[in-house]
Amino acid sequence: MAAEIVNPRSDSSTEQEGGAEPLDSIDPAFALHRGGKMAVQATVPVRDKDDLSLAYTPGVAKVCSAIAEQPDLVHDYTWKSSVVAVVTDGTAVLGLGDIGPEASLPVMEGKAILFKQFGGVDAVPIALNCTGVDEIVETVVRLSPSFGGVNLEDISAPRCFEIERKLQERLDIPVFHDDQHGTAVVTLAALRNAAKLTGRGIGELRVVISGAGAAGVAIAKMLVEAGIGDVAVADRKGIVSGDRDDLTSVKQELASFTNKAGITGSLEAALEGADVFVGVSGGTVPEPAIASMAKGAFVFAMANPNPEVHPDVAHKYAAVVATGRSDFPNQINNVLAFPGIFAGALQVRASRITEGMKIAAAEALASVVGDDLAADYVIPSPFDERVAPAVTAAVAAAARAEGVARR
Amino acid sequence: MAAEIVNPRSDSSTEQEGGAEPLDSIDPAFALHRGGKMAVQATVPVRDKDDLSLAYTPGVAKVCSAIAEQPDLVHDYTWKSSVVAVVTDGTAVLGLGDIGPEASLPVMEGKAILFKQFGGVDAVPIALNCTGVDEIVETVVRLSPSFGGVNLEDISAPRCFEIERKLQERLDIPVFHDDQHGTAVVTLAALRNAAKLTGRGIGELRVVISGAGAAGVAIAKMLVEAGIGDVAVADRKGIVSGDRDDLTSVKQELASFTNKAGITGSLEAALEGADVFVGVSGGTVPEPAIASMAKGAFVFAMANPNPEVHPDVAHKYAAVVATGRSDFPNQINNVLAFPGIFAGALQVRASRITEGMKIAAAEALASVVGDDLAADYVIPSPFDERVAPAVTAAVAAAARAEGVARR
Repeated sequence: MAAEIVNPRSDSSTEQEGGAEPLDSIDPAFALHRGGKMAVQATVPVRDKDDLSLAYTPGVAKVCSAIAEQPDLVHDYTWKSSVVAVVTDGTAVLGLGDIGPEASLPVMEGKAILFKQFGGVDAVPIALNCTGVDEIVETVVRLSPSFGGVNLEDISAPRCFEIERKLQERLDIPVFHDDQHGTAVVTLAALRNAAKLTGRGIGELRVVISGAGAAGVAIAKMLVEAGIGDVAVADRKGIVSGDRDDLTSVKQELASFTNKAGITGSLEAALEGADVFVGVSGGTVPEPAIASMAKGAFVFAMANPNPEVHPDVAHKYAAVVATGRSDFPNQINNVLAFPGIFAGALQVRASRITEGMKIAAAEALASVVGDDLAADYVIPSPFDERVAPAVTAAVAAAARAEGVARR
Repeated sequence: MAAEIVNPRSDSSTEQEGGAEPLDSIDPAFALHRGGKMAVQATVPVRDKDDLSLAYTPGVAKVCSAIAEQPDLVHDYTWKSSVVAVVTDGTAVLGLGDIGPEASLPVMEGKAILFKQFGGVDAVPIALNCTGVDEIVETVVRLSPSFGGVNLEDISAPRCFEIERKLQERLDIPVFHDDQHGTAVVTLAALRNAAKLTGRGIGELRVVISGAGAAGVAIAKMLVEAGIGDVAVADRKGIVSGDRDDLTSVKQELASFTNKAGITGSLEAALEGADVFVGVSGGTVPEPAIASMAKGAFVFAMANPNPEVHPDVAHKYAAVVATGRSDFPNQINNVLAFPGIFAGALQVRASRITEGMKIAAAEALASVVGDDLAADYVIPSPFDERVAPAVTAAVAAAARAEGVARR
């Protein structure tokens, strides 16, 4: 028998210092978070000497030696290919901004348990107390032997782009900034279904994205990659276009492959006659701008907790309305994508996550809706049991087709 | 309901490349290690939208904001104070030496599940692909926001000493190199009980330690700290003493507080008339040297898998014999110490693990044996359910007494 478990978190008697009312009794979110939201568990027994001699010394030495001789065996005989590092520096956490690594941990733990719950993927929060691009890259490279993949999370733009690119260059495991690509995958899935519902080809759609941060840039890239007719992106100063002289290098690149129509000026101006609005800005869009969009428009107002335009207002003009919120239909929620994307990539030991794998994820996600497609059902629920297996299988198949699978 | 779990490790169909016979069928240790030995689990439900809105957005935002305002709350509302990083660079793994980070992972996972099984402490393997002292220190400092403690493991001497010291200076969470201090704590516990059994005070014992690596140096320090009469340490070139001109700085320091008797020369010479032999070298000691020890000597031949002297031989001359093996009585096994030491330190949120906490751990461990004390029972079994709670409680109390507890 094992020793009695002495759980350091079991003492919940701590009260707030300074005599304040305990937070747990004020709000159920605090009570739920008491002691954290995750734990580690053994998947093999350690009941007696015999167990110990297999799982630890002396038995473990043979496994170590075998991996030293044949490095690929690390994927077979450790949890490496099951576990993803959820890496953040705490600089762009939810809508809260730069709150630092410790304060970001509840979100990272939440992400980790969603990985497990929806994708069967183990995930470990790694919140770093450094913010330099090279520091973060170097740190993640150093700890990469322990992990089968890296999910970057809540790292502010434009550093997130460079960090992801450099890590992808240096590592042979998937590196995926979910705030970019997870959002893009789910957006594309919803857009495909909305187009199908309204009988339009995606090549004829003109999309306007509000927000040129991590999500906005990635959505723009992915929509162009997937064959959307035209995409224009607006930042706080208006439409990103080549004639602006205030663009960062990321936005200069953005200008080079978006905005075929050559629109300049404000977001509102761009929305006139546009087919799709994608909001990932946290700002607001006035009702007249929505009213000026093309007939049968799609409005994806994904800012949380306050959509750029209220769904009730959007519905007055748009054929399909989606938000980031769970209390309205058509929730664009990353949890629809990242668990299955990593599960699929890990399953075939993909060396990276390609554009083709992401597009396959979006198609699989869209296809789950099937014949139930309707204006209030262009994207499945996060709790639809079909989602993760469909995304996993599609991503694994795409990895094989693209030659990045290693099994 | 959650989505069906798609476990990336569930596919056990992989065969060895090159047509070799699958390792799993050759050896049960491989079969046991298939897919690794650990997993992450959620400790809160994620069954539906309501759960998600508490554990993730929007509920989690309140918890993040509270931690941002009052940083200590990270201990209450995340798993930080329950989770330890098991950090290695793979340079001194078991008796296998420098096999690199990936090949060390089975040991680190083993350590992690022992932490959980015996101490209720969550632990995560972090195997680094860098070996420079400052690189390792910098990396661990950067990822420290995510962890409540750092267990250094299988890092070769003398770098392990400097890495531990620098991390202890820079972090306000426990940093503990188990190969040093875990071994020292269990050795001291066994030694106290052996002295008690044979009616001797520890102040009158002369100890000879074979091995001046991580374990040998730490055992020497701890025994001197605990009041052992005299301690001499031998490396491959003989007894470490001030008259040698080939000593590293670590061994120079060792010479300054050990070997009061001023012994020089070989290990064998030092053993003549010695009361205690402590072997942590991996070498061998000839029978005549053991025969030359004082009457009623203690022989702790802890090298694994081959003790420095076989227990049957040692028993011909010694009153008490201990080894590092589970198939002989009196196993000096670190698992008796590290789970409870970290559990106790985490329970009171100790800022570090002091000498007093380690000595308290050794005393608690020794006391578990109680009235059953006998020559073949100077140290409890790793599976004795009383061990971890006793060590945990003693370490927590010592942390409070020494002023390093924060709750």
